Amino acid sequence: MTVVIDAFDTAGPGDVDGLTAALHRHEAATIRRLALVVKTEGSAQIDDFSREYAAYRAREVVTRHGGTALLDRTVFLHSTGCEGAMTPFGYLMADLELAGPPATQPTGLALGVGRSRPIPGALIGTVAHAELVEQAVRDAMADAGLTADAVELAVVKTPLVSHDPPAPDAPPARVTSAYAKAVGALGSAVALGEVARERVVPAAFGTELDLYSRRTMVFSSSEAAAVEVLVLGNRAGATGSLRIASGLLADVLDADGVRRVLAAAGAELDGGRVADPGRVAALLVKSGYRHDGALRGARTTVHTSRIDADTHTRATMSGVAGSVLGTGRMFISANSVHQAPDGGGLCVAIVGPAAPEGA
Amino acid sequence: MTVVIDAFDTAGPGDVDGLTAALHRHEAATIRRLALVVKTEGSAQIDDFSREYAAYRAREVVTRHGGTALLDRTVFLHSTGCEGAMTPFGYLMADLELAGPPATQPTGLALGVGRSRPIPGALIGTVAHAELVEQAVRDAMADAGLTADAVELAVVKTPLVSHDPPAPDAPPARVTSAYAKAVGALGSAVALGEVARERVVPAAFGTELDLYSRRTMVFSSSEAAAVEVLVLGNRAGATGSLRIASGLLADVLDADGVRRVLAAAGAELDGGRVADPGRVAALLVKSGYRHDGALRGARTTVHTSRIDADTHTRATMSGVAGSVLGTGRMFISANSVHQAPDGGGLCVAIVGPAAPEGA
Amino acid sequence: MTVVIDAFDTAGPGDVDGLTAALHRHEAATIRRLALVVKTEGSAQIDDFSREYAAYRAREVVTRHGGTALLDRTVFLHSTGCEGAMTPFGYLMADLELAGPPATQPTGLALGVGRSRPIPGALIGTVAHAELVEQAVRDAMADAGLTADAVELAVVKTPLVSHDPPAPDAPPARVTSAYAKAVGALGSAVALGEVARERVVPAAFGTELDLYSRRTMVFSSSEAAAVEVLVLGNRAGATGSLRIASGLLADVLDADGVRRVLAAAGAELDGGRVADPGRVAALLVKSGYRHDGALRGARTTVHTSRIDADTHTRATMSGVAGSVLGTGRMFISANSVHQAPDGGGLCVAIVGPAAPEGA
Amino acid sequence: MTVVIDAFDTAGPGDVDGLTAALHRHEAATIRRLALVVKTEGSAQIDDFSREYAAYRAREVVTRHGGTALLDRTVFLHSTGCEGAMTPFGYLMADLELAGPPATQPTGLALGVGRSRPIPGALIGTVAHAELVEQAVRDAMADAGLTADAVELAVVKTPLVSHDPPAPDAPPARVTSAYAKAVGALGSAVALGEVARERVVPAAFGTELDLYSRRTMVFSSSEAAAVEVLVLGNRAGATGSLRIASGLLADVLDADGVRRVLAAAGAELDGGRVADPGRVAALLVKSGYRHDGALRGARTTVHTSRIDADTHTRATMSGVAGSVLGTGRMFISANSVHQAPDGGGLCVAIVGPAAPEGA
Repeated sequence: MTVVIDAFDTAGPGDVDGLTAALHRHEAATIRRLALVVKTEGSAQIDDFSREYAAYRAREVVTRHGGTALLDRTVFLHSTGCEGAMTPFGYLMADLELAGPPATQPTGLALGVGRSRPIPGALIGTVAHAELVEQAVRDAMADAGLTADAVELAVVKTPLVSHDPPAPDAPPARVTSAYAKAVGALGSAVALGEVARERVVPAAFGTELDLYSRRTMVFSSSEAAAVEVLVLGNRAGATGSLRIASGLLADVLDADGVRRVLAAAGAELDGGRVADPGRVAALLVKSGYRHDGALRGARTTVHTSRIDADTHTRATMSGVAGSVLGTGRMFISANSVHQAPDGGGLCVAIVGPAAPEGA
Repeated sequence: MTVVIDAFDTAGPGDVDGLTAALHRHEAATIRRLALVVKTEGSAQIDDFSREYAAYRAREVVTRHGGTALLDRTVFLHSTGCEGAMTPFGYLMADLELAGPPATQPTGLALGVGRSRPIPGALIGTVAHAELVEQAVRDAMADAGLTADAVELAVVKTPLVSHDPPAPDAPPARVTSAYAKAVGALGSAVALGEVARERVVPAAFGTELDLYSRRTMVFSSSEAAAVEVLVLGNRAGATGSLRIASGLLADVLDADGVRRVLAAAGAELDGGRVADPGRVAALLVKSGYRHDGALRGARTTVHTSRIDADTHTRATMSGVAGSVLGTGRMFISANSVHQAPDGGGLCVAIVGPAAPEGA
Repeated sequence: MTVVIDAFDTAGPGDVDGLTAALHRHEAATIRRLALVVKTEGSAQIDDFSREYAAYRAREVVTRHGGTALLDRTVFLHSTGCEGAMTPFGYLMADLELAGPPATQPTGLALGVGRSRPIPGALIGTVAHAELVEQAVRDAMADAGLTADAVELAVVKTPLVSHDPPAPDAPPARVTSAYAKAVGALGSAVALGEVARERVVPAAFGTELDLYSRRTMVFSSSEAAAVEVLVLGNRAGATGSLRIASGLLADVLDADGVRRVLAAAGAELDGGRVADPGRVAALLVKSGYRHDGALRGARTTVHTSRIDADTHTRATMSGVAGSVLGTGRMFISANSVHQAPDGGGLCVAIVGPAAPEGA
Repeated sequence: MTVVIDAFDTAGPGDVDGLTAALHRHEAATIRRLALVVKTEGSAQIDDFSREYAAYRAREVVTRHGGTALLDRTVFLHSTGCEGAMTPFGYLMADLELAGPPATQPTGLALGVGRSRPIPGALIGTVAHAELVEQAVRDAMADAGLTADAVELAVVKTPLVSHDPPAPDAPPARVTSAYAKAVGALGSAVALGEVARERVVPAAFGTELDLYSRRTMVFSSSEAAAVEVLVLGNRAGATGSLRIASGLLADVLDADGVRRVLAAAGAELDGGRVADPGRVAALLVKSGYRHDGALRGARTTVHTSRIDADTHTRATMSGVAGSVLGTGRMFISANSVHQAPDGGGLCVAIVGPAAPEGA
């Protein structure tokens, strides 16, 4: 089995031309697992339906290519918000049944997926929800053939309750979003051996900020009914030429952290920049600001601005990571609560082989 | 004469405690020229009055310290928009009559100001307006004792017409803002010997994007009645220990350009970062996105987003420059039209002396 | 032929349950013409894709019900912006081949549609574009069997160019939107005999505000490739029980104007309100603020606010019309340029028969 | 003692020309009490400083006119948000020592003010805070010579805590704002005899929506250190020609409720509108949407929109009340929690005498 990654641009949330072209490079029958990791443009506000629209169109494309059978082998991660230097685009990650090129390194990139049963609304944000996440991550690790230690990234998408009647004077969708994210991150952290299960309790959600996974990115989605998980890691014997590395970022200005991860995945750095950006198959970053808005001892306005903190985060990090990578074609997402220390982040790079000398 | 720079934080647009403390370090009589260069928090939308409020309070503080005589020796530049990594703060730049510390380099930082007569609304955005800018820049150069070649930065603040009855279905404040900025940048470019006077015609304003100054930052303000100019450069014989350098940025991701300017001003770089951030007395950046929104060949959403392009620009560049400088205490402003090639920017750094060995 | 109108609520732009139920009340073969007039929730900003999403889903529903044949007999008008008292919903208007109930009045509601050939981008906003609108309105009148005098409402949807490379420092999408709306309104006004054809010249677009139709609502859509028109009026001999009336509104506070139109269509008023709201089959309003923002001699902030004037308009008018109608289930749209005098609007009501006495 | 009311327009939050002119109509020594009730333009978002700016300037004007002695006799209520039909303006309400014109009615308008001691941050939102509000309202009633029954309006301005370090992942300013408003409204309700003191407990704040005052408008302000109260009512023997009336509104579309209050204060209605708007000295409305967003059984988007519910409320109600009053010069504010039933509002009108016949 061989994991391949294609990036495809989009002209808008409803544009599936690039996705269709990328998908058609692979016969449906050869695709063991498919993951679509997409940055959708849109306002990322509560009345932004671009993600739902893009996901609807993407499901159509996948179904047309391989029917519901392929749909069942696919996980979708659409994340809205392409501020700053980012370009709207997606990664198509396919684990192919075909043998890849001879492995150029002792390990190759491995990919697995997991999915929980549908989660009833009353369970969202509870410990039971966290346990369903934990199991889905374990399933994805088994699917990928990866031990917990070998996982470099677990992407967790979890439902949130947004259509319940709101409580008086309280924004419950956000409360639930914070809880959904907490169970997503901490359930994964348990599966990855990073956090003890007994610490995953509602009282900790969103408040015990020293409780975090180091290799999880969590996304909540009002469209999702079940938890969906994608795990990536390097596995001995996996074919293909890609290598993944991940590492924590200290804060939103931590360009050194981005450089370290890129180097660990095999990219060459030249001064502050990647020397060979064409070899970087994927760069994914989760970033955030501290809950008190301070950055290196100075006040920021990210929590006291008409623009939400997530938008500030994505735009800032698009500059930091983009100036290292040399392009805005990268996946940057905000809100790193329980996915890094308060104000920190997670960076993941997947890099292909150096061109042979003389090539 | 000696130029000194103090940075002061603000807790809000109406907070003048830091400014007052910084100003009181200098007896009014010793201040030959004063410049306040301030990043004001606020939405930076059309109904944001934070800049006007901050300027009102700052004038009170200056007047209380040195009366209208000091007010007449002061230029104010309040610029709204502290997105992303930026912290709301200001630079107090004072040219003191006192002799500074013995110059540590052949040249020292010199500062001069200029001011036009009040400009009637009908003249805003015309060639006559550009000529008034040109003269104010020449006056500021003379005041600083700098030749055109020695100027590293000319800051031009120019009025715009925003209270005239708007034309049907046209946002004239913005049109006028573009024109006001064009005359500000191009008038300065003529004074600096960068652009021929005959090319400064309305037909070029906002459209001939290859027409630009390389050392001007222009700001338009509905509160200003006259053009105000601040010029900075290195002058042989000037005392003080600061050194200024400037250079163009290729685009909003050009961290290398930021590093080059910091190095030229005397900062040491370590990998991608400044090794000795405490020595950087000031970092000022004007940045922008291309008119078509493309960045290194990829589409961005900066011109097709609920958030204006200037906000995208400031937030992105706050990450780029902040990750080099290691702090968000820096002055970043957007809209570089006629101040750099389309999509480019201008970076200016002022750096103090290296600590003596053994210190 | 009988025109029937059903209102259906939506739970979101992607919700087609209500539309599906309403459509399935009519066998596809009996539907001579179909018009979907829908208020879509979403931010109504440049990065809002809710309208495109809703239209995509609606086309699917119509196609499933009656194939491309029914699609060809359908016009879609999705208009984003459900601020204030408005509820997200749509009107399904169907002209049925079946004979309706015996006419209760000398005339009955008649409906017709027209469609131009696809309009190349270079033609958008030109006189040729206006002529295509004019012809499409004439076609719709012929389709409805209505003379120009009998038309109470012409709804014109016209393409605009939004994907061309924007000119430097100019928001061309908006310029083009203004032009697209001008040709839509004025082309229709020519067809309706309200404006002389020779006055429809680009120099007048968006500036000669005394040039307007009195019975046209125009919408521009980046998704549309051709002009689509829906006309409504009362026609002798038409069966069905609905009656339409329309009239200009003086300004956004003109509740009297709304009352007059409702009364003219047959509704009873009780004090300031409709006495029998259940009889009002449809209420459609186009409204606007003056280009200088003044309202009855007082300044408003609608043109100097972070919120665009169209959002102000829809929210204000939702209160005015909603307080008369007694519900927020009504179609309110903003920007009335060339569709009413500067600052005015157009109100259209369709009312069903009074309940027979004793019922 | 005679209460007079002047309305003054503003050209911006920093414009005090109208206020100065209105204030200078009265010698400082003759002003027993002064109240400034001002609608400030600005985004009304968290980074809007227009209210703080306007209040700063207004304090300067009052101090210049009557020194700190007059300042101590003045209450300031600046409320941001002039959406829709509203015009930015203020009411200057002065209780003059001079005898007014002979009373034209058995009672005349009476005005009183109250002020608590500064409230420490730890007390905000507690029962002790509510008790301080209660006492300030009682003080204001005594100052006005009004019994609880005779009060038609109590305006309560109360501090909120907005500068404490925010708790992780929680917007405490808003929580505190809700609590501050609850104690403001319910403390006043106790003083007015509308709510039993034992029901005023934190568990009820923002959740027991059937607990409300019927004559209170509450405002929270991060600038205020103490509770400030203004009460208005009709008092036997008071001179002057103004009459006040108040009443609850069922919802944001309740134009009938607005009409009833205007009529009760003495205005004549003609159809749905005020026949003699020049006689209406003041119209003040607090309005809101239900916590579940429903309006007359239909869904609205006010709680699921990029625009906050308060902005939706003000803009909608500006249409409803403006279409009755015939002008946008009126004071409309949002968030009626504990000031009316869920989704309801409060309307207050002050009307002057009918012109004598033949005048």
